[in-house]
Amino acid sequence: MSPFTGSATRTTRWRHLRVDLADGVATVTLTRPDKLNALTFGAYADLRDLLAELSRERAVRALVLAGEGRGFCSGGDVDEIIGATLALDTARLLDFNRMTGQVVRAVRECPFPVIAAVHGVAAGAGAVLALAADFRVADPTARFAFLFTRVGLSGGDMGAAYLLPRVVGLGHATRLLMLGDPVRAPEAARIGLISELTEEGRADEAARNLARRLAEGPALAYAQTKALLTAELDMPLAAAVELDASTQALLMTGDDYREFHAAFTGKRPPRWSGR
Amino acid sequence: MSPFTGSATRTTRWRHLRVDLADGVATVTLTRPDKLNALTFGAYADLRDLLAELSRERAVRALVLAGEGRGFCSGGDVDEIIGATLALDTARLLDFNRMTGQVVRAVRECPFPVIAAVHGVAAGAGAVLALAADFRVADPTARFAFLFTRVGLSGGDMGAAYLLPRVVGLGHATRLLMLGDPVRAPEAARIGLISELTEEGRADEAARNLARRLAEGPALAYAQTKALLTAELDMPLAAAVELDASTQALLMTGDDYREFHAAFTGKRPPRWSGR
Amino acid sequence: MSPFTGSATRTTRWRHLRVDLADGVATVTLTRPDKLNALTFGAYADLRDLLAELSRERAVRALVLAGEGRGFCSGGDVDEIIGATLALDTARLLDFNRMTGQVVRAVRECPFPVIAAVHGVAAGAGAVLALAADFRVADPTARFAFLFTRVGLSGGDMGAAYLLPRVVGLGHATRLLMLGDPVRAPEAARIGLISELTEEGRADEAARNLARRLAEGPALAYAQTKALLTAELDMPLAAAVELDASTQALLMTGDDYREFHAAFTGKRPPRWSGR
Repeated sequence: MSPFTGSATRTTRWRHLRVDLADGVATVTLTRPDKLNALTFGAYADLRDLLAELSRERAVRALVLAGEGRGFCSGGDVDEIIGATLALDTARLLDFNRMTGQVVRAVRECPFPVIAAVHGVAAGAGAVLALAADFRVADPTARFAFLFTRVGLSGGDMGAAYLLPRVVGLGHATRLLMLGDPVRAPEAARIGLISELTEEGRADEAARNLARRLAEGPALAYAQTKALLTAELDMPLAAAVELDASTQALLMTGDDYREFHAAFTGKRPPRWSGR
Repeated sequence: MSPFTGSATRTTRWRHLRVDLADGVATVTLTRPDKLNALTFGAYADLRDLLAELSRERAVRALVLAGEGRGFCSGGDVDEIIGATLALDTARLLDFNRMTGQVVRAVRECPFPVIAAVHGVAAGAGAVLALAADFRVADPTARFAFLFTRVGLSGGDMGAAYLLPRVVGLGHATRLLMLGDPVRAPEAARIGLISELTEEGRADEAARNLARRLAEGPALAYAQTKALLTAELDMPLAAAVELDASTQALLMTGDDYREFHAAFTGKRPPRWSGR
Repeated sequence: MSPFTGSATRTTRWRHLRVDLADGVATVTLTRPDKLNALTFGAYADLRDLLAELSRERAVRALVLAGEGRGFCSGGDVDEIIGATLALDTARLLDFNRMTGQVVRAVRECPFPVIAAVHGVAAGAGAVLALAADFRVADPTARFAFLFTRVGLSGGDMGAAYLLPRVVGLGHATRLLMLGDPVRAPEAARIGLISELTEEGRADEAARNLARRLAEGPALAYAQTKALLTAELDMPLAAAVELDASTQALLMTGDDYREFHAAFTGKRPPRWSGR
């Protein structure tokens, strides 16, 4: 637990997600398999609040986001989100869409790597959640579909029009966001949308292995790598180089850098403290 | 016709382009096949003015840009542009180069998707016009060449040094813009420069089909997807997420979103109004 | 020699690099083959100062960066850099990391193309030096490893968290910088990290040939292409288009543009002056 924890309490039960914590790895599972893990207002709110709690507690060093059943996540529920938003007033429509965007910002800005374990469908908001993750570990059944225009909405949802061109380039991103056509695993791997392609049925396991590797490694180095990747997308070269310099100078005073040198000269594997 | 139309008249005859309008699709054809559709001062000016008229009239929902004859467009005409610019004074040189850039900005900023139908050569300004389009539908004869340095000019012409790295990455973009070597269809597809690779001789037809699909679909959703893709290349993540939220809140009050839900619950295909 | 040379003298002997100048091509070779060309404080300082001198003298039109022996560059020396930095105070740590970043900025901002000739290992700072170059000419033995986290540091070093996403996309960049796993030549070619893949043992020769081609060509056009590519990564579209317009208007008053037209109409190859 971080010393910078105040009065805020820890949520004891997440009603819209399953959350497991073990050995520095949080596993967050969408658990509406009968609805292909379609998201509800509650699921978005829980993702937003969970990421905020985990970010301030600092007990977690890697997070896996997975879906139970036949697929990863089919996006916003047709009844509980699309139907419900048709009845919302202007202020609430904006509130809802800000909340979904806050989830994406939280995924990008939390101080630990996020690994999406994708099998089957990752559609709509489900595709954007995977896109926002640092790693997309997927099996050959994975199918990404940014199908917002198919429901009459903008393909730029939850930061997708920002993130997707930076992951796969503007040409592919335009095609995927404009048309909403599904992208199957081979194409997703080819255009850089998948970080690791596993055997069928092995995405969850491979994501867990990657999370464990990250959690056992130099966590502060990973956290800063993620923070700089996120920040430097929005910075000019000169500022990015300066940020790198001050970050690296800081980490050179850290325990793990000293430990690396001791381990290397002692011809033994390093024992990372993550500090 | 948009209600926001004032006194400006519609151009009745485009002397340097062929323009066809049907069912919400504008087809703009470069028609100097004996010169491989080399561009002239007049062709640039017509492209700039046509896009401005179509943008304010709002009758068009998709635009196809094609070339007649053996290729798409060989770029600026050696006599009518290169020769002519050698005689221009400083102010006119700047005026000319601003005009060509205005065409690219108009392609990126017009409120409908633009589809370049590419066969044969797309060179110089022709390559940049295709690059600025939202979709590049190309057949196996397509050959892109950003050959500006071959005539002693900067590879950064008409926004190419901005756009190309965002489409194919900085490494490929540097190679293509610096050397001006031709990129044939297989490589163009591999690096993400082509959106759809067709059979030989079918680029125009495939582009028309795509334009028809877009024109019959949720046009406002497509227009906003394009606007956000264009805008968010230049925005930080937090601002992009906020823009997405307000855009989506707006579209959730639109006819097409309501129509999607009615169609889905009624188990029928949606009838898009584009509003 | 540029007329804009003041009192500063030219360094007569580079102690930490081998520098050859011939026919407008500078070849800079890392020459610690017994240490896989591991970098030292002196090598960084020499690279920074050499690029500054070459940039102000303007005698060089292309630069090749190569490594002697079994590999390109294994990055910072474990003893002479990692060990030494453990003894530095805060101000010197910042100074060191700013110096390494200045080398990368100098590579991106010098007024001539830089070609990294890569065989064998390009690790840590060696991988970033290659990444900062305009061209990476590599043979099948090339192996890139951004292994900063492996020594307990941030993957964002010397601008890597800025440059790598812009070269290979955010997904691949996150994986490479976070994990530090080696990327072998076939994958590097596939994701756009290599500009030209040569036969085994031919990277240096191919890099020299490319440098010669660039040095014999329209050097001002190449320099401006590079400058715009670098600048426009950090500019919005409208500003980039304006910069292109004024750059192109300027180059249209230059000797090489006039020479192209004379050569073309005279049906002879152009004689580039680079002005």
